[in-house]
Amino acid sequence: MKREDSSPTACVLIIGDEILSGRTQDSNLAFIGKRCDKLGIRLRETRIIPDVAETIIAAVNECRRRFTYLFTTGGIGPTHDDRTAAALARAFNVKLIRNPDALAALDKYYAAGRLNEARLKMADIPETARLIDNPVSGAPGFQLENVFVLPGVPLIMQAMFEGIVDRLSGGEPMLIRSMATNLTEGMIAAALDELQERYQDLSIGSYPYFKQGKLGVNVVSRGTDKVRLDELAGELEEMILNLNGKVLLSDT
Amino acid sequence: MKREDSSPTACVLIIGDEILSGRTQDSNLAFIGKRCDKLGIRLRETRIIPDVAETIIAAVNECRRRFTYLFTTGGIGPTHDDRTAAALARAFNVKLIRNPDALAALDKYYAAGRLNEARLKMADIPETARLIDNPVSGAPGFQLENVFVLPGVPLIMQAMFEGIVDRLSGGEPMLIRSMATNLTEGMIAAALDELQERYQDLSIGSYPYFKQGKLGVNVVSRGTDKVRLDELAGELEEMILNLNGKVLLSDT
Repeated sequence: MKREDSSPTACVLIIGDEILSGRTQDSNLAFIGKRCDKLGIRLRETRIIPDVAETIIAAVNECRRRFTYLFTTGGIGPTHDDRTAAALARAFNVKLIRNPDALAALDKYYAAGRLNEARLKMADIPETARLIDNPVSGAPGFQLENVFVLPGVPLIMQAMFEGIVDRLSGGEPMLIRSMATNLTEGMIAAALDELQERYQDLSIGSYPYFKQGKLGVNVVSRGTDKVRLDELAGELEEMILNLNGKVLLSDT
Repeated sequence: MKREDSSPTACVLIIGDEILSGRTQDSNLAFIGKRCDKLGIRLRETRIIPDVAETIIAAVNECRRRFTYLFTTGGIGPTHDDRTAAALARAFNVKLIRNPDALAALDKYYAAGRLNEARLKMADIPETARLIDNPVSGAPGFQLENVFVLPGVPLIMQAMFEGIVDRLSGGEPMLIRSMATNLTEGMIAAALDELQERYQDLSIGSYPYFKQGKLGVNVVSRGTDKVRLDELAGELEEMILNLNGKVLLSDT
């Protein structure tokens, strides 16, 4: 597929020691990736970085310039290791202020007397930011230019993402077809290469798996033209059968 | 915890459209992250990038200079979308050559007549590279200076990682303790902040969760001093009980 399409691009910045260490499995990328496909936004890079202010600032400033949109997840809670909001203020060289609308949202969410000093920290937002409503747990995210700052808890992040969709300009939705086979990569590589040559408007990916002692491949086709994807799917099926393989349900 | 410790650092570069899209869940980071903790190597960043040569080259050249070690996963198979080996050769400005030892390994693995042209591609290795044995499926990975090029299939990657451990210089192993509570972040934030102040040699992370309608927090402590971690664990437990919370088994 031509990588030079004119669609908007995106980067996801996952902030958090616990995701970076690999001990907690991220699931926000999967959600944002699928939403971007549907919105016609091309997700081009993901970075996972620790809760370190300087690292956050450097990554934000690099990525917001390289991509149309930057989505960050994590680090906007009430604890000492939540450093994203303050880092974003520094990245954009604006003040971190107690935002009255954020304060009102927190005040509405928490029962009387429970909005303590730690929770009030979640109302501290970069001065020029536009809030992102949190319909689940009160504390808002925020947008600074092309950067969307979202929380790390998946259910809350997902609800908040839906609230920013109308601020995003998409392109043509990315369509995906996937098919698995018990053939191995080495057996299909030549035929797959030939297909990719003839379908340059689509991207064909080959992803080997090794499960329960069995090797196989998931073949994933991506593109914006449904008719062409259907044609390719037909040819892929034929290719697998010609090589005496089985067409299996893909699990991707 | 002091981020300025003198331990070696690492970056993981996950190469592959399918991981980047979020449709396939990566599990290599979790493995490498845990192995780095044990080896005393500080994992500082992870990037997920597509199978695009220019993107791979730029990321490799940036990250290999910033970190002691760079581990890449993915993109060294036989298909058209496996572009990592060629990209690494370009990143290091060396030739991609058919490596005789890699060829011998493939020849040994594949039954007579099955080592086709596509599979032979897996013997094409940057000229100055040192091979990394693949005890599972023949095709080797390789090392170029501080960059270790590993496959994407988790079981194979894991087996190959064990083969490079003696090429890595570690520091003090990172020890981790984790504890969960039904208290929310806002309830523990002040006490946790006070603990972090007193335990500056350790890093205390607070990770909220929201599962089956219940909020809670995993508190994860990291550091190199077992005695201090045990002391902190005792204080964390006391903190939770003092706030009328429950100490739960952490799932991280």
